[in-house]
Amino acid sequence: MGRVIAVSSGKGGVGKSMVATTLALNLVKKGLKVGLLDLDFTSPSTHVILAVKGLYPEEEYGILPPLAHGLRYMSIVHYSLDEPAPLRGEDVSNAIIELLAITRWGELDILILDMPPGIGDATLDTLRLVPRIEYIVVTTPSVVAFQSVKRLLLLLLDLKIPVIGVLENMVMTRSSYIEDKVKGLGLKYLGAIDYDEGLEASIGEPAKLMKTGFSKGVAELARSLA
Amino acid sequence: MGRVIAVSSGKGGVGKSMVATTLALNLVKKGLKVGLLDLDFTSPSTHVILAVKGLYPEEEYGILPPLAHGLRYMSIVHYSLDEPAPLRGEDVSNAIIELLAITRWGELDILILDMPPGIGDATLDTLRLVPRIEYIVVTTPSVVAFQSVKRLLLLLLDLKIPVIGVLENMVMTRSSYIEDKVKGLGLKYLGAIDYDEGLEASIGEPAKLMKTGFSKGVAELARSLA
Repeated sequence: MGRVIAVSSGKGGVGKSMVATTLALNLVKKGLKVGLLDLDFTSPSTHVILAVKGLYPEEEYGILPPLAHGLRYMSIVHYSLDEPAPLRGEDVSNAIIELLAITRWGELDILILDMPPGIGDATLDTLRLVPRIEYIVVTTPSVVAFQSVKRLLLLLLDLKIPVIGVLENMVMTRSSYIEDKVKGLGLKYLGAIDYDEGLEASIGEPAKLMKTGFSKGVAELARSLA
Repeated sequence: MGRVIAVSSGKGGVGKSMVATTLALNLVKKGLKVGLLDLDFTSPSTHVILAVKGLYPEEEYGILPPLAHGLRYMSIVHYSLDEPAPLRGEDVSNAIIELLAITRWGELDILILDMPPGIGDATLDTLRLVPRIEYIVVTTPSVVAFQSVKRLLLLLLDLKIPVIGVLENMVMTRSSYIEDKVKGLGLKYLGAIDYDEGLEASIGEPAKLMKTGFSKGVAELARSLA
């Protein structure tokens, strides 16, 4: 397997799952072999964005993730079927360890992980279990959001985990606040993506999603990775 | 102690902490004795919104929460001092149990809990430890957000936890989508609060926050509770 890139954020609702999914789709478009693993167990979203329904992993010496819109896709909703899945931290840990251990990704150029917000079990487990992991961290321009994002960045820096950079999403008014803060931590600022009013209407329609202004912003990031 | 109201959401970034804090401040304004407990340990935000700094709980047969802007305020940041605090689920459980057990709230009319997003340890523990808990659930108009919010609502309904209702936040274009979904679950729709561009500038300035359009929307909710 090639690179393993975690798309994360200290804070929920910053568009992390949209970035992870759209990044994966843009990498597929470039001809790469891409996997997408949704580790946000308490509020999985990528299956809604991709409109994945009725696709199930095959079991054969492990689990083969189904192909969805050209990418190998794995999520806990393959099993929980969109029912409420209250999970204690320990169960989350076990589920992540199991998913990472039994999924047979085959040959991949890039595996994208959609991480849960914050720095809880999923973050700690993937850091422990996936030694070559690299992080893309998503924030919004909000002071409150960046406050939480900064905690995650400080943790990653402290643990010497490679951080590809910080992407600023849902920008309404351009300002250098986030860029300055990111550079102040010695990290790369991956650019700003403007708030895209049409994005909501593209949820569940990947072809439409790929034509949004949001996707054009993410495509630039994909270019720098491929 | 009077009512214990958890402000929660299946999804992060929907303005849950802003609603919880502004609701608490509006209840103080009505002359009620109010407590605010931030249980969102992986991305605590209420201390930023309230600009709580240099306030520490006194210890005396338990912990006395300091008074901030007229409300009794308790958060893990009193102890973690804004450092990154990676917590495993089990530690989150223990910290919640400890905070709930040792905090001496005194006489309160309403205790507001700012819950973490999703249905993880904090949600499961508070449901177990606070038998009289009632829920206000915050969502945005987004299909993806409501997908996660619905999981939480189904869990609460299944466990027969009282749900005061669902508040729709950050509304840009009025639509009955969320209202219909909420009523379809047999729950109360608490109204829509428009997206407030000026809100970001009021973070850290509670007096300014109380004058925003957002706060006027939350004040209506406060009226129905007081």
